[in-house]
Amino acid sequence: MPDLRPPRPGEIEIDLPETTDAELYFIGRVRTPWKTLAECPKNTAARKGIDARLEVDARFAAGLKDLELLSHVIVLYWLDQSRRDFIVQAPSHVREPRGVFALRSPVRPNPIGLAVAEVQAIEGNTALIRNIDCVDGTPLIDIKPYFSSMDSVPNAKRP
Amino acid sequence: MPDLRPPRPGEIEIDLPETTDAELYFIGRVRTPWKTLAECPKNTAARKGIDARLEVDARFAAGLKDLELLSHVIVLYWLDQSRRDFIVQAPSHVREPRGVFALRSPVRPNPIGLAVAEVQAIEGNTALIRNIDCVDGTPLIDIKPYFSSMDSVPNAKRP
Repeated sequence: MPDLRPPRPGEIEIDLPETTDAELYFIGRVRTPWKTLAECPKNTAARKGIDARLEVDARFAAGLKDLELLSHVIVLYWLDQSRRDFIVQAPSHVREPRGVFALRSPVRPNPIGLAVAEVQAIEGNTALIRNIDCVDGTPLIDIKPYFSSMDSVPNAKRP
Repeated sequence: MPDLRPPRPGEIEIDLPETTDAELYFIGRVRTPWKTLAECPKNTAARKGIDARLEVDARFAAGLKDLELLSHVIVLYWLDQSRRDFIVQAPSHVREPRGVFALRSPVRPNPIGLAVAEVQAIEGNTALIRNIDCVDGTPLIDIKPYFSSMDSVPNAKRP
């Protein structure tokens, strides 16, 4: 269950719509060394080189064919422990509250996590990967090939 | 409605699960110059420099705060005209059928589209962007800041 903390100063909480608009299938699970949210790495350096796995359900496993031809994939997963109703947030690492769409916070209207992961190997219905920081057992929703021509922007500016 | 064509040679069609696992809110719409799927650009070059807009619903618009500090964002959208049941596919540009997770095909178990887009400006509830190739009116599901430290892999290998 998400932690229903009160908003911090400057944060904005919204009423979510009464109905939803589309539905997802969980296609498998992300396996990582971190059993609780508290254990998950807090920065990019801490997850570098740590082995993880994408375990794809039997029904969807044929979709992994040819994944070994790629050095990197984009992994989408469902942050099922996240609340969805803070639209402006004040995480401890920023000085002023920021809009959720300018943050990689797990708290967002649609709590989809995204990681650009290194592919190590494919073994049956499992992709061995590196560079993901979610909790063990996180539901997997998609894997996409990473194409540097479309996805790589080395000089992107950020605050 | 999705086009329910029969599988091509080598393609694999699956039975989708009877129940879904999570639900999405549409947070707005993507506005592009392309009114039908047939008009959408077929390659990266054709969408380069073409202006598009992310129109965020009033309820979620405060989440755009600070987006102007970013040069690029990752846009997630819902490919609502896509079927979801081809797990191995034979698109015309590849020689052998490929697994869906090694393809950027819109046909996938969870038809989430992803584009790394340039931010031009924010005007009220609208983000003016470039570099997206979906049909006009496509439902928007998330906007994330692009962080080159995590998201940029200039030398990623692909087939």
